Amino acid sequence: ARFVGPTTLDVDGHTHVEARAVVIATGSEPVIPPPFDAVREHVMTSDDVFEIPDLPESIAVIGTGIIGLELGQALHRLGVDVMLFTPFDELGPFTDPSIQALAHEIFGAELKLQLRSKMLSATAVPDGMQLHWTDSDGNEHRQIFERVLVAAGRRPRLKGLGLENTGLELDARGQPVWDPHTTQAGIAPIFVAGDASGHIALLHEASDEGHIAGANAMSYPEVTAHVRRTPLAIAFTDPQMALIGQHYSELDLDEVEIGTASFENQGRARVIGRNRGLLRVYGKRHCCTLVGAEIFGPEAEHLAHLLAWAVQQRLSVPQALEMPVYHPVLEEGLRTALRRLAKKLRVTGQCRCEDMAIAPGI
Amino acid sequence: ARFVGPTTLDVDGHTHVEARAVVIATGSEPVIPPPFDAVREHVMTSDDVFEIPDLPESIAVIGTGIIGLELGQALHRLGVDVMLFTPFDELGPFTDPSIQALAHEIFGAELKLQLRSKMLSATAVPDGMQLHWTDSDGNEHRQIFERVLVAAGRRPRLKGLGLENTGLELDARGQPVWDPHTTQAGIAPIFVAGDASGHIALLHEASDEGHIAGANAMSYPEVTAHVRRTPLAIAFTDPQMALIGQHYSELDLDEVEIGTASFENQGRARVIGRNRGLLRVYGKRHCCTLVGAEIFGPEAEHLAHLLAWAVQQRLSVPQALEMPVYHPVLEEGLRTALRRLAKKLRVTGQCRCEDMAIAPGI
Repeated sequence: ARFVGPTTLDVDGHTHVEARAVVIATGSEPVIPPPFDAVREHVMTSDDVFEIPDLPESIAVIGTGIIGLELGQALHRLGVDVMLFTPFDELGPFTDPSIQALAHEIFGAELKLQLRSKMLSATAVPDGMQLHWTDSDGNEHRQIFERVLVAAGRRPRLKGLGLENTGLELDARGQPVWDPHTTQAGIAPIFVAGDASGHIALLHEASDEGHIAGANAMSYPEVTAHVRRTPLAIAFTDPQMALIGQHYSELDLDEVEIGTASFENQGRARVIGRNRGLLRVYGKRHCCTLVGAEIFGPEAEHLAHLLAWAVQQRLSVPQALEMPVYHPVLEEGLRTALRRLAKKLRVTGQCRCEDMAIAPGI
Repeated sequence: ARFVGPTTLDVDGHTHVEARAVVIATGSEPVIPPPFDAVREHVMTSDDVFEIPDLPESIAVIGTGIIGLELGQALHRLGVDVMLFTPFDELGPFTDPSIQALAHEIFGAELKLQLRSKMLSATAVPDGMQLHWTDSDGNEHRQIFERVLVAAGRRPRLKGLGLENTGLELDARGQPVWDPHTTQAGIAPIFVAGDASGHIALLHEASDEGHIAGANAMSYPEVTAHVRRTPLAIAFTDPQMALIGQHYSELDLDEVEIGTASFENQGRARVIGRNRGLLRVYGKRHCCTLVGAEIFGPEAEHLAHLLAWAVQQRLSVPQALEMPVYHPVLEEGLRTALRRLAKKLRVTGQCRCEDMAIAPGI
């Protein structure tokens, strides 16, 4: 189906629909960087990597975001010779510089990384694909990889929908300007849900958007704004990566203090032999509210849920420290970070953070 | 040191101390059941099991509580021939009958259990210890075990303290009658902290009691009552066991609804091949508040923290369902139970629980 007017849809040339409201939920598709345009048929994406029947000898992974690292590390640990490429310097989703630095150290020690590299060309050859690139020092390399996995992000699947016929305002990327609280595009009876919105490409967010879009499309022109959940993103690398609430890059550093805990000497992490990682939790000086965290460490997925629920409830750091923490658990590492944050907030906090001295055993 | 008067202590016969206030923090000691009295030197407890240099061929574990199951299962998985004994029918700390039933099924399939057995005698023999018992059907058995591990509970280490000279009111077990909010024994300037209190023998609770006892001993006769944390107990068996907030046995079943989720078909649990277990979460009909849960399942330790923090914050079930849950994670199993609980509370709840329909994606 495609739009032929603001609310008129043409379905495969045979049917015209005059819609009272429309929900666009067409999902997303992988971005294929230009050097791979000509050999597109020969590269894999996360859409088809799980279909390959045998492990290749070698693989080039294009992209060092969540998918690139998750799959790249997994394939490496399955015995595949993996090299990861990015024109940038970032590994994973971290915006906190101390955690980025540790990610470079830990992933760099395990995986072959070509950071700040420039892919010049990709050529299909009988035994795979020859890549030609310059590394961060500008030196040229040519190497043949049996497979190439492109994990350079995904974009909303909006091409061919005829959005230009809707009169919708489109942003620089050609996506409808959109309200995450209503999923409504502008003031049109058009609602966009899930990856198609280009907002947050996560299943639980897409599911919420589906509910909001469906309800608002039904009740249009009555449109209800919904409160969205606290941001929560997790990557299943080892150590795991997680971002909760406000990212470091979104903080007003004059307004927050940071509590840090390393997993290197954390009791439980040592017991299970997985004592690598860093947890940084952000608290607002005003009223000592928890606002976010970035975590690189063992079982970060669970600490991330605990923190996301705390942030969504606008828990203060003293309140969080009143909560029970068992022994010996990884959550004690989180408590260490919270205690350190509390100590800083007692000095700089503007909202009687010193109350935190009252609870026992803080 | 021992009491020779209400606040007078005799230290090893050479020193008398007239104390302004006293903190008793003498810890606990293992309970040795009567059949093992005579062979006490030959049995191990959790105090010394970690000191043995080699694994025995066989071991009898006396007790099927947390310590008995944790150590019994661990030794079994290390290749030791393990048999567990209890005069009762209970396995682990569960008070919820459905979870007890599953614990019987799962532990029973892995471990040799002698439930409802009666230990008649224990005799040291050259190659270990001969136990003589009757099983649940009354049949007699005799068997030699290389080692015997007694894990039949611990009691406060109060013997020899001369508590009878303090004038303190003692309960049926000979322990001072005691206030968990102040750690004070009666109205005396005596404060009891940690396992010595016989209250909750957990490290984080003992730590809190140490803080409270220390502060109140210092400030006596000013004594401050402290809010205690939401109960949280975890056992590191596989699957893990956890109890949060009010136990099933403490519920007024006319006042609560129960939401249940099995881990058998839970997505993430299946992915990691650990899809065994059950989670039961309790919500109050009045205002739909979460009051507790019992969990038998993979990574229960983490779900238990999430729930304990929610219970301590008096979160309602609808509020809990507004919190983010990632995919694919074990926390989705918890959400399933909360959704089922919410559906029941919408019918029986007395506090506009129907508000729960508002949040997207519940």
